[in-house]
Amino acid sequence: MDEGVERISSGELSERMNVTASQIRQDLNNFGGFGHQGYGYNVDQLYHAIGRILGIDRVHSVILIGAGHLGQAIASYEEFPRLGFQITGLFDIDQEIIGTSVRGIPVMDISELPVFAKKHTIDIAALTLPKEAAKLVAKLLYENGIRSIWNFAHVDLEMEDAVVENVHLSDSLMQLSYRIQQHQKRGTE
Amino acid sequence: MDEGVERISSGELSERMNVTASQIRQDLNNFGGFGHQGYGYNVDQLYHAIGRILGIDRVHSVILIGAGHLGQAIASYEEFPRLGFQITGLFDIDQEIIGTSVRGIPVMDISELPVFAKKHTIDIAALTLPKEAAKLVAKLLYENGIRSIWNFAHVDLEMEDAVVENVHLSDSLMQLSYRIQQHQKRGTE
Repeated sequence: MDEGVERISSGELSERMNVTASQIRQDLNNFGGFGHQGYGYNVDQLYHAIGRILGIDRVHSVILIGAGHLGQAIASYEEFPRLGFQITGLFDIDQEIIGTSVRGIPVMDISELPVFAKKHTIDIAALTLPKEAAKLVAKLLYENGIRSIWNFAHVDLEMEDAVVENVHLSDSLMQLSYRIQQHQKRGTE
Repeated sequence: MDEGVERISSGELSERMNVTASQIRQDLNNFGGFGHQGYGYNVDQLYHAIGRILGIDRVHSVILIGAGHLGQAIASYEEFPRLGFQITGLFDIDQEIIGTSVRGIPVMDISELPVFAKKHTIDIAALTLPKEAAKLVAKLLYENGIRSIWNFAHVDLEMEDAVVENVHLSDSLMQLSYRIQQHQKRGTE
């Protein structure tokens, strides 16, 4: 879409995505299928259909618990609002940063969360805090009706009747390490 | 291992990992297999075997290009040194932070990179900088013999004869969004 492409075949998509054309067709067919025999996919329609599948055809209100470097980095990512993820609040326990703001978003005391949660819709809470605090904060979120957690703390959270996405940055670093090793092996063969 | 478990069956692993036991056996068999019929896996041996497969049985020297919030967050992750990824240098162009240090790691001027690269081994460069600068910096890294890039900038880098791992934080946020939607559908059924 960015390149002005209006329609695309699964074969062309395949080349761009490093996935086979038949895999693409199969995956999309699982959601009803959006292509037309001999025509391919209408890029604009496909974009919006995938957006609906992912649930990013609406605005999500996101709060960040932990306004340290990671929280501030996440709050500054321009990509997220573009996808409809609006950061609506930052919370911390550090009195030095409570009361400041990051990109116009106020940093509040975590003790203010219950009142904030009553007044505002919160779709997602991101945990950008040390792992020691993660479970306690997850419990606090749960008690305040927040059931969707994007967890950066290095501890896997499991919560009943809630959706938790654990982010493991080290996974991608280990994947890189594996690929470096394979690359070096090929080089010395 | 953290829990003192000395041996484990693929069935028990399966429950912890939410992957089928046969998938686990199949995956590990692709690398030679490490289990024994009727015994399962020796946890310590398996841990080290997987470490060797991933190439994390050695120390990797990592530099970060971009000492903003994301760079500082990455530099502060305790998980990375534990896996052998040692941050050995931070580089930036902002004169205000050049000369400071983060967790004892000096922030250097990007112009010092060529000299630094000659003096020190650099296994991986992480790009924790705005996307506008990513391609130019990737070129600079390449010219200085650095062939492995962990890229956080929101632009896919493709480099010949190099290993690039692009990190898309928004992927996991969209995955969360999808799962929230599925969760809500189940709730209203």
